[in-house]
Amino acid sequence: MKLALTEEQEMVKMAARDFLADKCPKTFIKQTQESETGYSTELWQEMAGLGWMGLAFPEKYEGGDMTFLDLAVLLEEMGRACLPGPFFSTVVLGGLPMLDLGTEEQKQEYLPQLIRGEKIFTLALTEPGYHNYDASSVTVEAVHYNGNYIINGTKLFVPDAHVADYLLCAARTKHGNGITIFLVDAKNPKINYSVLKTIAGDKLCEVVFDQVPVPEANVLGKPDQPWSTVQRIIERAAVGKCCEMVGQIQRVLEMTVDYANERKQFGRPIGSFQIIQHYCADMATDVDGARFSTYQAAWRLSEQLPCTKEVAIAKAWISKASQRIIALAHQIHGAIGVTIEHDLHFYTRSAKAAELAFGDADYYREIVATEMGL
Amino acid sequence: MKLALTEEQEMVKMAARDFLADKCPKTFIKQTQESETGYSTELWQEMAGLGWMGLAFPEKYEGGDMTFLDLAVLLEEMGRACLPGPFFSTVVLGGLPMLDLGTEEQKQEYLPQLIRGEKIFTLALTEPGYHNYDASSVTVEAVHYNGNYIINGTKLFVPDAHVADYLLCAARTKHGNGITIFLVDAKNPKINYSVLKTIAGDKLCEVVFDQVPVPEANVLGKPDQPWSTVQRIIERAAVGKCCEMVGQIQRVLEMTVDYANERKQFGRPIGSFQIIQHYCADMATDVDGARFSTYQAAWRLSEQLPCTKEVAIAKAWISKASQRIIALAHQIHGAIGVTIEHDLHFYTRSAKAAELAFGDADYYREIVATEMGL
Amino acid sequence: MKLALTEEQEMVKMAARDFLADKCPKTFIKQTQESETGYSTELWQEMAGLGWMGLAFPEKYEGGDMTFLDLAVLLEEMGRACLPGPFFSTVVLGGLPMLDLGTEEQKQEYLPQLIRGEKIFTLALTEPGYHNYDASSVTVEAVHYNGNYIINGTKLFVPDAHVADYLLCAARTKHGNGITIFLVDAKNPKINYSVLKTIAGDKLCEVVFDQVPVPEANVLGKPDQPWSTVQRIIERAAVGKCCEMVGQIQRVLEMTVDYANERKQFGRPIGSFQIIQHYCADMATDVDGARFSTYQAAWRLSEQLPCTKEVAIAKAWISKASQRIIALAHQIHGAIGVTIEHDLHFYTRSAKAAELAFGDADYYREIVATEMGL
Amino acid sequence: MKLALTEEQEMVKMAARDFLADKCPKTFIKQTQESETGYSTELWQEMAGLGWMGLAFPEKYEGGDMTFLDLAVLLEEMGRACLPGPFFSTVVLGGLPMLDLGTEEQKQEYLPQLIRGEKIFTLALTEPGYHNYDASSVTVEAVHYNGNYIINGTKLFVPDAHVADYLLCAARTKHGNGITIFLVDAKNPKINYSVLKTIAGDKLCEVVFDQVPVPEANVLGKPDQPWSTVQRIIERAAVGKCCEMVGQIQRVLEMTVDYANERKQFGRPIGSFQIIQHYCADMATDVDGARFSTYQAAWRLSEQLPCTKEVAIAKAWISKASQRIIALAHQIHGAIGVTIEHDLHFYTRSAKAAELAFGDADYYREIVATEMGL
Repeated sequence: MKLALTEEQEMVKMAARDFLADKCPKTFIKQTQESETGYSTELWQEMAGLGWMGLAFPEKYEGGDMTFLDLAVLLEEMGRACLPGPFFSTVVLGGLPMLDLGTEEQKQEYLPQLIRGEKIFTLALTEPGYHNYDASSVTVEAVHYNGNYIINGTKLFVPDAHVADYLLCAARTKHGNGITIFLVDAKNPKINYSVLKTIAGDKLCEVVFDQVPVPEANVLGKPDQPWSTVQRIIERAAVGKCCEMVGQIQRVLEMTVDYANERKQFGRPIGSFQIIQHYCADMATDVDGARFSTYQAAWRLSEQLPCTKEVAIAKAWISKASQRIIALAHQIHGAIGVTIEHDLHFYTRSAKAAELAFGDADYYREIVATEMGL
Repeated sequence: MKLALTEEQEMVKMAARDFLADKCPKTFIKQTQESETGYSTELWQEMAGLGWMGLAFPEKYEGGDMTFLDLAVLLEEMGRACLPGPFFSTVVLGGLPMLDLGTEEQKQEYLPQLIRGEKIFTLALTEPGYHNYDASSVTVEAVHYNGNYIINGTKLFVPDAHVADYLLCAARTKHGNGITIFLVDAKNPKINYSVLKTIAGDKLCEVVFDQVPVPEANVLGKPDQPWSTVQRIIERAAVGKCCEMVGQIQRVLEMTVDYANERKQFGRPIGSFQIIQHYCADMATDVDGARFSTYQAAWRLSEQLPCTKEVAIAKAWISKASQRIIALAHQIHGAIGVTIEHDLHFYTRSAKAAELAFGDADYYREIVATEMGL
Repeated sequence: MKLALTEEQEMVKMAARDFLADKCPKTFIKQTQESETGYSTELWQEMAGLGWMGLAFPEKYEGGDMTFLDLAVLLEEMGRACLPGPFFSTVVLGGLPMLDLGTEEQKQEYLPQLIRGEKIFTLALTEPGYHNYDASSVTVEAVHYNGNYIINGTKLFVPDAHVADYLLCAARTKHGNGITIFLVDAKNPKINYSVLKTIAGDKLCEVVFDQVPVPEANVLGKPDQPWSTVQRIIERAAVGKCCEMVGQIQRVLEMTVDYANERKQFGRPIGSFQIIQHYCADMATDVDGARFSTYQAAWRLSEQLPCTKEVAIAKAWISKASQRIIALAHQIHGAIGVTIEHDLHFYTRSAKAAELAFGDADYYREIVATEMGL
Repeated sequence: MKLALTEEQEMVKMAARDFLADKCPKTFIKQTQESETGYSTELWQEMAGLGWMGLAFPEKYEGGDMTFLDLAVLLEEMGRACLPGPFFSTVVLGGLPMLDLGTEEQKQEYLPQLIRGEKIFTLALTEPGYHNYDASSVTVEAVHYNGNYIINGTKLFVPDAHVADYLLCAARTKHGNGITIFLVDAKNPKINYSVLKTIAGDKLCEVVFDQVPVPEANVLGKPDQPWSTVQRIIERAAVGKCCEMVGQIQRVLEMTVDYANERKQFGRPIGSFQIIQHYCADMATDVDGARFSTYQAAWRLSEQLPCTKEVAIAKAWISKASQRIIALAHQIHGAIGVTIEHDLHFYTRSAKAAELAFGDADYYREIVATEMGL
């Protein structure tokens, strides 16, 4: 047992922190979130140049040959900085499932483009009818016809779809458990995008497939996969999201401790009041627990150990912990936290979105229960 | 002991509910919140015509001669409807303190204007430096000079100041506990207003007094009051805010139960799942507790019984309860609750603002403790 | 709306408080709880003399003609004093159901004996297999045979059965919903009692019916009642238990505030520390909410208004609130609370038992949900 | 980062689990807790034979040369088994402080006796006046006189003192921060012991020193130590206690899952109900977070890294988590959990005692706050 980052991970962490502190100040976030695309192509290229997109991919696809746990450290820093843009969509929702499921040919064609920052990917999974993840919630159909599949239906809450080059689209190809994941050219004119107005600054889209033909060669790996294949993608995405959330809540804690040390009441910093100290201590404790639950899941996933239960514990935990932490941060900030320009709101809104992304606490509680034999 | 509304209160309640259902749909709220003034003059006149502004004032000022508890019922309905505008500022922050503290002359001059809906009032109390309410947080000064007082300084988070005709402004006139409340002509050109951008839809202003002269006759009642005078105003405002919040959370509960009955997963309404049932039951229980704590405080205030502890319990309670209730509502609504146009957000944002208004849970916890002899 | 006790209720309250402060000190409780019978016959007679057993019964049965709400006030004081003995069993579980369901003949025969303190009653309802209350959990059978019913089977957690003169025993007489309540002579030699060792000081028994014959005349009211009949008995018992719990947690709050004012750390009372003040304030707030939820239920029951939802809210609420309150009391008492002789333990143990009695929080949450249409 | 036990730790764990499953069944615990000494000398010798007492001590004192983290694994198993007896007192409160602070001579004399299981040690630190740990709470005095120190005063809540051979006694030798730890012969007739009646099964004693002379040579290390020396002892003890608690709550979780799978309602296991599944999932999540916080602290302590904050986070966390876990376990067990003979009570009572031992959550929250610069 060794509960510290490796030297290499520490380097990734510090380099990312410095770079993002420089390139991603709050003014940049605000402006980027309000832009139509939701990301900066310039920054995107710089990140590619630093090897971030390729970090967790094998060298033969031009990747950095590091592990998922190393990527976890990077994601944590991105969460801490509230970095806007399609990194998560491209790498965690697009690239890693492709690495996992794609044919060698597909990987050789697409991964280098992804790693070089040339193409943006995302995953089109959830649909208007869904309340939580389960096989029956995939109803978009792909009908085999004349050497092609024809995709028809609507996907909802697809992140960054409006700027994506490729969509990994999960569609029903057989009744029962048959789900096929397609690599769809996102620029096909028969696909319609509208960006939803959500409380967070991310770009979630409604994506309407109107008889979109996709060649057989674009089936990611094999057709007619069981729901467990999709579940593995969700699991990895959930851990990735947990990493971002750990970065977010760590930053919220630091902002709050700073504020408590600066703000005065009755002539002394509010951080000298016992109740504020207890609140901050509770926040720190919660951040710590969330971090270790997340690292446990990321480490097991990285080591290819079974991790369904650990992922579920991590996401169930942090989805609630981030609510508690944000609530205490607001409690301590008081009225000042209500003004819309306060930095705290970037985190408040992101946390709300992240809490629900890839399964909320209740969804994962049931997985934990199942894994314990209940 | 009788734990039901009187017949008269039931009538106020139902009339208000019907009127607001008709006049204050969500589209109206949205549009009004986005307008510069934050209220509709037409609706304002209608409400005055219904006798709402005057409901809790004596007949001799053209009021309805009803009690604070009757007003509480009306405020609950306004909270339920998310009614935008300066009713609370005018009646609870302006009129009732005037009734309490003003000279007979002042009451005869101003209250009828208020009751007829001709003039808008508000209270300028908090300042940039404040973290919570206490005597030392009032630093705006009023210097006696040549038959006038000259007010100088900045007030923050003043509701509806930009549309007010009169400001009740608390200023320091003597060191130690000496605070004087002035009835200030809000249109004085030496007063500067800027509306703050806050997360809620209400209009909170920064109000800068730049050497504003106020005649002696505009001292509300007597000069150099102790802090306890201000505290009584805050107490009444806190109870009033609790009433609004009870209306809000009651509505959030109803919306959530409706949603749980409509939304389906695995082919059955999510409200048929045990966990959703428990969440809704917890919400209902919390709403009930909040309502009775609030009624207890409003009843005692109405009966002119000592109520410092009961007010503190009510506001401490509901400030936390509304957080819990809103969080569960979002939990049940899931991803749909993240889209910015969802009605739930009117309540989420109002609740956040209300939680802090006139003292948060921590502020009142300490009052409860003091009242118990700790 | 009137949120205060009537003058008569205030008198009942103060008389009971004084009497119990005198007659039921902690040494008496301890000794009585450790005794075999679990009550003092002398005190029992005194209580009968004060008219306590008959308080809520009509005059024609020698009762005091007061309401259930008046009885609620008395029960609260008994909870506050941790009074041991079969008052609750006799009056709430035995007498009131008899008043409700019995024939005029039965009432005229049994109620005066109960009211005079001559006979002890209780209710034999739950069984070894039960996890929570529902119709199917009653499996003890009563077979009609030759003008008698023959009861066979085991009841569990029957309070005070070992000292009872009469058991109201719920048995299955028809499949489906058919449940009959019998008035059983508790001294029948074919009934076997063993007192269970529980953490609380009350006397819960296993009661084994081995072919016990009961005459038809001892069917309480009519045979083959629906489950809702039993449910009404449980509801009333739940409210009664809530009243006791309100008294308990009120006393725990007072003991804790006193302790916080006496105990010193760093040379000042621990009650002067902000965190202790917040804890006590949270306790007070919780007690208040619990009291009003309980009064709401008791008042509706007393007024014969529909009260299923209100009872459920009260018991769901207080079952959790008393846990929170006791936990904070222990937190504040620190190590001293671990010594077994500390008075706090009387309340800790009673609270644990009361929390589960007549349905725990989860049981009532589901009733609340059902009542809201979920 | 490596989040798994080493092979050696896995071996310690499994060996301990098997041994304790065999030697320490619930009947043994009950009987031992009810005995006067509170431990079995036979089992004590077997444990010494297995090298348990010496596990974390250097070879030169006949120890096993393993680390504190290895000992942590053993303590977790002891907690899991609810092992009664003075192992914790001897090793964690006696031996490890001696290894840390003692002179080479003292270590050579005492540690081998401890490791062989020949002598029992404990720590006499807290006193009647203490509410939480701080320098000023040590008021027992040791006066230097004629080559001896004369100790006078009362220590409270000293574990296993009545069977100890040696007491490490913290006494005030200089005003301000001067505290000296003495190695006191526990059999000195001027020391009086009384075992306190506590709710847990452990043996906590009042120890009265009536002019007890202790030779200078029995000053552990150097006299007049700062409070930080004592604090290090408390920190280690707190981590050790956390380890035991992790074992306890893990076992409570397993018992509860088993029960939920066995117990039926409406003809199906209660573990198939969604709410029970969520409860169990919350318990599992809490156990996991508690385990990692504890391992983090134990690992840092083991690696001699600064760990004040991490220890504080672990103890603050688990003191609350174990309350939550036990409460859910009782919720799920329902009425059956109220019977005093249920195994759950061993854990309920131990958890209560452990929660307070070596500082409760509030004590550690303040340390966390201080460590964050508040």
